[in-house]
Amino acid sequence: MKTIIRGGTVVNADRAFRADVLCDGDKIVAVGESLDVPAGAKVIDAGGQYVMPGGIDPHTHMNLPFMGTVTQDDFYTGTAAGLAGGTTTIIDFVIPAPKQNLIEAYHQWREWAKKSAGDYTFHVAITWWDDSVHRDMEILVKDHGVNSFKHFMAYKNAIMADDETLVKSFRRCLELGAMPTVHAENGELVYQLQQDLLKRGLTGPSSHPLSRPPEVEAEAANRAIAIANVLNTPVYIVHVSCEESLEAITRARAHGQRVYGEALAGHLIIDDSVYQSDDLEFAAGHVMSPPFRSKHHQKALWQGLQGGNLHTTATDHCTFCAEQKAAGKDDFTKIPNGCGGVEDRMSVIWDAGVNTGLLTPSEFVKVTSTNTAQIFNIYPRKGVIAPGADADVVVWDPEGTRTISALTQFAKGGFNVFEGRTVRGIPSTTLAAGNVVFHRGVLMAQEGAGRYINRPAFKATSAR
Amino acid sequence: MKTIIRGGTVVNADRAFRADVLCDGDKIVAVGESLDVPAGAKVIDAGGQYVMPGGIDPHTHMNLPFMGTVTQDDFYTGTAAGLAGGTTTIIDFVIPAPKQNLIEAYHQWREWAKKSAGDYTFHVAITWWDDSVHRDMEILVKDHGVNSFKHFMAYKNAIMADDETLVKSFRRCLELGAMPTVHAENGELVYQLQQDLLKRGLTGPSSHPLSRPPEVEAEAANRAIAIANVLNTPVYIVHVSCEESLEAITRARAHGQRVYGEALAGHLIIDDSVYQSDDLEFAAGHVMSPPFRSKHHQKALWQGLQGGNLHTTATDHCTFCAEQKAAGKDDFTKIPNGCGGVEDRMSVIWDAGVNTGLLTPSEFVKVTSTNTAQIFNIYPRKGVIAPGADADVVVWDPEGTRTISALTQFAKGGFNVFEGRTVRGIPSTTLAAGNVVFHRGVLMAQEGAGRYINRPAFKATSAR
Amino acid sequence: MKTIIRGGTVVNADRAFRADVLCDGDKIVAVGESLDVPAGAKVIDAGGQYVMPGGIDPHTHMNLPFMGTVTQDDFYTGTAAGLAGGTTTIIDFVIPAPKQNLIEAYHQWREWAKKSAGDYTFHVAITWWDDSVHRDMEILVKDHGVNSFKHFMAYKNAIMADDETLVKSFRRCLELGAMPTVHAENGELVYQLQQDLLKRGLTGPSSHPLSRPPEVEAEAANRAIAIANVLNTPVYIVHVSCEESLEAITRARAHGQRVYGEALAGHLIIDDSVYQSDDLEFAAGHVMSPPFRSKHHQKALWQGLQGGNLHTTATDHCTFCAEQKAAGKDDFTKIPNGCGGVEDRMSVIWDAGVNTGLLTPSEFVKVTSTNTAQIFNIYPRKGVIAPGADADVVVWDPEGTRTISALTQFAKGGFNVFEGRTVRGIPSTTLAAGNVVFHRGVLMAQEGAGRYINRPAFKATSAR
Amino acid sequence: MKTIIRGGTVVNADRAFRADVLCDGDKIVAVGESLDVPAGAKVIDAGGQYVMPGGIDPHTHMNLPFMGTVTQDDFYTGTAAGLAGGTTTIIDFVIPAPKQNLIEAYHQWREWAKKSAGDYTFHVAITWWDDSVHRDMEILVKDHGVNSFKHFMAYKNAIMADDETLVKSFRRCLELGAMPTVHAENGELVYQLQQDLLKRGLTGPSSHPLSRPPEVEAEAANRAIAIANVLNTPVYIVHVSCEESLEAITRARAHGQRVYGEALAGHLIIDDSVYQSDDLEFAAGHVMSPPFRSKHHQKALWQGLQGGNLHTTATDHCTFCAEQKAAGKDDFTKIPNGCGGVEDRMSVIWDAGVNTGLLTPSEFVKVTSTNTAQIFNIYPRKGVIAPGADADVVVWDPEGTRTISALTQFAKGGFNVFEGRTVRGIPSTTLAAGNVVFHRGVLMAQEGAGRYINRPAFKATSAR
Repeated sequence: MKTIIRGGTVVNADRAFRADVLCDGDKIVAVGESLDVPAGAKVIDAGGQYVMPGGIDPHTHMNLPFMGTVTQDDFYTGTAAGLAGGTTTIIDFVIPAPKQNLIEAYHQWREWAKKSAGDYTFHVAITWWDDSVHRDMEILVKDHGVNSFKHFMAYKNAIMADDETLVKSFRRCLELGAMPTVHAENGELVYQLQQDLLKRGLTGPSSHPLSRPPEVEAEAANRAIAIANVLNTPVYIVHVSCEESLEAITRARAHGQRVYGEALAGHLIIDDSVYQSDDLEFAAGHVMSPPFRSKHHQKALWQGLQGGNLHTTATDHCTFCAEQKAAGKDDFTKIPNGCGGVEDRMSVIWDAGVNTGLLTPSEFVKVTSTNTAQIFNIYPRKGVIAPGADADVVVWDPEGTRTISALTQFAKGGFNVFEGRTVRGIPSTTLAAGNVVFHRGVLMAQEGAGRYINRPAFKATSAR
Repeated sequence: MKTIIRGGTVVNADRAFRADVLCDGDKIVAVGESLDVPAGAKVIDAGGQYVMPGGIDPHTHMNLPFMGTVTQDDFYTGTAAGLAGGTTTIIDFVIPAPKQNLIEAYHQWREWAKKSAGDYTFHVAITWWDDSVHRDMEILVKDHGVNSFKHFMAYKNAIMADDETLVKSFRRCLELGAMPTVHAENGELVYQLQQDLLKRGLTGPSSHPLSRPPEVEAEAANRAIAIANVLNTPVYIVHVSCEESLEAITRARAHGQRVYGEALAGHLIIDDSVYQSDDLEFAAGHVMSPPFRSKHHQKALWQGLQGGNLHTTATDHCTFCAEQKAAGKDDFTKIPNGCGGVEDRMSVIWDAGVNTGLLTPSEFVKVTSTNTAQIFNIYPRKGVIAPGADADVVVWDPEGTRTISALTQFAKGGFNVFEGRTVRGIPSTTLAAGNVVFHRGVLMAQEGAGRYINRPAFKATSAR
Repeated sequence: MKTIIRGGTVVNADRAFRADVLCDGDKIVAVGESLDVPAGAKVIDAGGQYVMPGGIDPHTHMNLPFMGTVTQDDFYTGTAAGLAGGTTTIIDFVIPAPKQNLIEAYHQWREWAKKSAGDYTFHVAITWWDDSVHRDMEILVKDHGVNSFKHFMAYKNAIMADDETLVKSFRRCLELGAMPTVHAENGELVYQLQQDLLKRGLTGPSSHPLSRPPEVEAEAANRAIAIANVLNTPVYIVHVSCEESLEAITRARAHGQRVYGEALAGHLIIDDSVYQSDDLEFAAGHVMSPPFRSKHHQKALWQGLQGGNLHTTATDHCTFCAEQKAAGKDDFTKIPNGCGGVEDRMSVIWDAGVNTGLLTPSEFVKVTSTNTAQIFNIYPRKGVIAPGADADVVVWDPEGTRTISALTQFAKGGFNVFEGRTVRGIPSTTLAAGNVVFHRGVLMAQEGAGRYINRPAFKATSAR
Repeated sequence: MKTIIRGGTVVNADRAFRADVLCDGDKIVAVGESLDVPAGAKVIDAGGQYVMPGGIDPHTHMNLPFMGTVTQDDFYTGTAAGLAGGTTTIIDFVIPAPKQNLIEAYHQWREWAKKSAGDYTFHVAITWWDDSVHRDMEILVKDHGVNSFKHFMAYKNAIMADDETLVKSFRRCLELGAMPTVHAENGELVYQLQQDLLKRGLTGPSSHPLSRPPEVEAEAANRAIAIANVLNTPVYIVHVSCEESLEAITRARAHGQRVYGEALAGHLIIDDSVYQSDDLEFAAGHVMSPPFRSKHHQKALWQGLQGGNLHTTATDHCTFCAEQKAAGKDDFTKIPNGCGGVEDRMSVIWDAGVNTGLLTPSEFVKVTSTNTAQIFNIYPRKGVIAPGADADVVVWDPEGTRTISALTQFAKGGFNVFEGRTVRGIPSTTLAAGNVVFHRGVLMAQEGAGRYINRPAFKATSAR
């Protein structure tokens, strides 16, 4: 099946230019001015619009089992919501329980993901360590297309990786050509602060940000970067939420170290006043880690994206409904952590970033798609509009508007941290693997159409 | 005339991949695996080699009249030397004398440049200010393809721009969509330090670096960046030579400001011990501004390139012979400032940067070609191997070696700051506008074959 | 006449301890526990109170002729207001008009100051340069007890010192053992921003802060510090108002450079929302340079005092009445710049600094008195409670409160930037030169009782 | 017994002034010009010399049991060597073995220290955690004059404190008014690097610095500071050896956090070339942790002292003889860590710091005595020449010279890292508790004359 997107402005990370885009099957086959329309081709009019590579969300949790429950969005609803928002690929996480065999966990997640409507791939978390983990990391890299491993520095008494695990796993990543990534929060400090707050009777959601102040995040970011520096590995810091963590990254990069930072759409847009709400359901709905921060930090994050010290944008999409959130109504530490966003990321970042002049359209593509594709080694299959690339294309209407609401969203969970925000700049059409999956508000996502994306190991992961 | 480069690894800023490159006339027309060889096409075997966009040197001074004399390299010999080293385009400088009409100066330089063997274009210096300068800047941008203006913050009592000129010119650049660039050294401090040293009888070339310490450069860089910040313009700092200037850039970029930095091949490689030589001719041969710095600063500059706080590499190619340098034998302030390098930049940076693992080949292309093309708005005509781009191509032999010497170089001046250095990684073939102009040590540069490159204004030069 | 202060806690910069303080004539003669009360001695009960060295305000402008008018407070009313607030010494400024002979200006100010009720001394401004200035600086240092010179980097077309003047004067300071001080704002940028705002019709006081953004201040601070660094002199930055200037100081100090910073009580307490008032008289009443900043900068200034990167606190006391301020009602650039504060500095800093735990009482003494005395070389005559020191003593009631108001203040001008603020921590008694000049709200200042304080040159002013 | 020191220049942290100093018994009783000589008083002529408070070394290990052996210097020889060098007080360490009762360990060290010739006091190390440790910390503070606790972040599988212990102990310090101190090196990284080096057959002392690079130290310093920040405690970092750690301190202080840093005389003077020696005994003699660093770091440490980001100087005096060091001849990880210096600290810092102009004499006193006395709450009993202070006085001959050598030193161990260095600036006389214990090269130290110094808890240890 051929599709031609005509009359738009193609936006890649390196430049924007007027061109038509021809897709054949699941690939882009031609990009050029005034391309001939092949017989039988579907024609999409992109006049006055931008034609961009489909968004890649490097941080989602679909179908995540958590605290005896499971997230509202499974791989079908979650990836479908992404398609509606212009995101055609997600990188989700395999999270083995401590002592669980990595390969077993990997297959479990692969099974859950079969119903995906959009393309997907997995980071695998290293939540414990023994010789089998050392061995299985190699199997995952060589046989299963995994080239990144995640480490939680928070969540003491659960999945927290201590320094010994970090050092051993980072080293193993270096040997295998994989990218170590970290959730940077000092789990010991979080635990102690939580205990203190509970002891003082401060059990509500407004205690959540108090238990995870910026210093707690910055410490862990700095530590992970130091370990990577000493071991000579690159490192990728997920959900950088505050100025202090960003400064740790900026310092390291200024010394030539290959450190990458990810910002969440939520952290870029939402501030910590949400936790002060008298509506505890509303406040609990915003509980995620790291928490939302003050406006000062949001400004810093945008500057990080502008100056090249932050590289990717994600959502940490992880949806729980009000009933699930209510598990923590008497103890904020029991509120399931997580918020949505996979459907809204592209639009809220365009609206707050491009419409304001903070980012150019090419920079938008860089931070929503291209950089992620490059850092996780699926470029130029993903992340660029060019012949040979996957036909994951979003036709972007810079004048289209949408008012975000849980009532009208495709994602599940019944809650949206961007509720009521009207954004200008929305996908008019999304193509995934050459198929029109979303057009002018109508979602045509197909369960199971998404493909698992193998990510090859890097030839060299040296930090220098 | 068609030329096909077969069997190499194309290296662009975003990735490296196996492909053949087909040139037709002065353009690249196809890039792909196993391209058919058109009838009559010249075939260049790039097996085991890299195929990269021709280098762009954003900072040269050919045929520069200076202190009653003129540089040894004119536009023919200088650009020809560039071709021999893999550099196919230069950005030189029109430097009006104070009170000289800008358009008149521009035409003078255009005239001198007609003999160029490689492509060229010009920054125009703003060395004075009145209403005619304000008017002529617009003419240069609209009618003559100039999109950048240079400001010397040094050279008191000569071409130094004071704060008033900087502010007015930066503002004008913003209106016109042009990039302001600065030579950052505090001219007043340099002047006072020079006078002091001379008074103390310290008249030799070893006084040169003492008269221009890093703080003098950092002050000016910081000031130019502050002016750009307040006026909301981007700014490009030429020949960043020290850690302190780089830190000023890094700080600004960390706050999201669009500041760009250029490093010279010489500053990356040569240290300030050269000024301590008993051979005064040798020492004077290294007199340029800013001066060479200690090894500590070299390390910082490499880190700047790695971390994305420095963007381009140049040479400030400006050759004077020993007799000319001797004008300052009794007074170091009278030594004509300048060194060569246009022929050597690509190889010395590859050798010291890629062979050591500091830079990947793609990063090498970024800092020797692509970034310059983007910053000065001639991308993707220059700076990339892609269909539609100019057929400026360098076939790079990563195993080829060359021992640099003034005795064997093509450039004039009889001196080379890299004398005796053996580099691994050299151009085996250079194509300029589709013509083979250098092959396996043989230079086939043709006087007058170079073209003036119009550089269009930016649509927006806003710093944010 | 002897006076004994009994039962209090003496607070010096190095420690606090229970002791009585005996004064004889204008000197402190004994400090110790349970001192005998000499016959005929006046006894002041300091039970439950602190006994601290009298405050020194290193930055005031009494009787300043400005724009055809003169400040409301002369040396009598201004110093008397200081005594009421616990400040017993001021350092004011001799500001020669361009081309005015320095010695002549000095004597003019000495004449005006004869009526002072408290001790005083002068910085002398270098507003122009020729050989006579070079010569007169020496006369001032050797014969007139001046050891500091002020340089305005702002006020283009008036008293602005360009780089040449800065360099020559800093050098001269080094030779003479004097401290160069600077008002750090880039006058060229301020001028251009003012012209822009006026052209755009933005003539009200809310334009004042827009014409002097933090970057304008930071640029100048960085430049002055760089000049001092290159010339190897110390440097003192007056009225540091923003994070960016403070960072320039912090960077320099971290590299061992002897740079000192002064914060104004106003900048520590008042934020820039005052300029948004619809009451133009109120807004104009707050016009001073640098302007008040956002709360973010206030936090930074406090951190500067805590961390030892800012050293002194002052007021820039310079009072104009509403009628005078009205000169700029159609053009904010014509509003006389200046606010009061000499009467309130000690209390507002205690209230916002010590009561909140940001500063210890000893640190309070350091930043309100001791550091100034040391930096300007009148320690230990001033700045410490110790035998041999001047009997300038403030008995501080940490539980006493006062609501600041123009209606009840001793200072002139009919306006107070701290209007309505209730502070806890006030002087109960002030002794100046051994005399009780203020007691429990009653001011007993005597016109002409203040003395000119000679400040000897430093033996060495080397920055290193 | 009275002693009068006549004709010298008293140097305190706040100023230097001509004065005589009269001691009676173990106290200073008068400081003033031309004091009367009491009948029978011993007269010491200090003409042309400085009279300074005795040095305090806040970091020594006398009589330390370690790896089945014990340091060469016991409390008598070690403190006597200190007296010979002008150091009259040491703060040593009680280091309980994991699981050892703290009070028991404390008494053991008190017993060993009875033979001290100079005054002494103890930091107590927290090497493990349970409820008894929590309880015993209070006993030590309330009943035994301990106000500081030490935490080793290095030495995995031995005395390393993990984050949980750090958090719990810092918190306890806050409750008790005690100062937490840390040895900042990431023990996990050190361990892994050691294992790597050994596996690669790099078993010699030149591997020692490779196993403890600056990043390893900086990570731990940053972590300890972050923990202190979150818990709102002050923190003191022992033996800061590199620019990166210093930067962590500088950043925290710039944000107003109460962080203190200690530099060792060795780190200020000796560079890491010592580990490259072919003389393995020489190289092993320099093995201590953190190791000596490159000259670049030394420069940074001096700047830290100048700018007020480092506060104290110490030695980590811990002497092992060649035979003991030889335990690691086949495995550098088995070389007992430690070097001497208590006898040399004052002279080498004066010579390299004051003679070069980096520090003033007052700043020298600050960093060798006063700051330590203040930070560890024994000021003004120690750290100042003033009536009421302990009569610990060093008469300092700024023109006297000494060539340091293990052959002529009083300390044991047969090795000196400053071997062969000739210093200008030596004690001519040392008084300890009013007794002349060293005079013109003759040591009159008396075993058992030293006193245990109680250090009271702080009223507030809040970091803010």
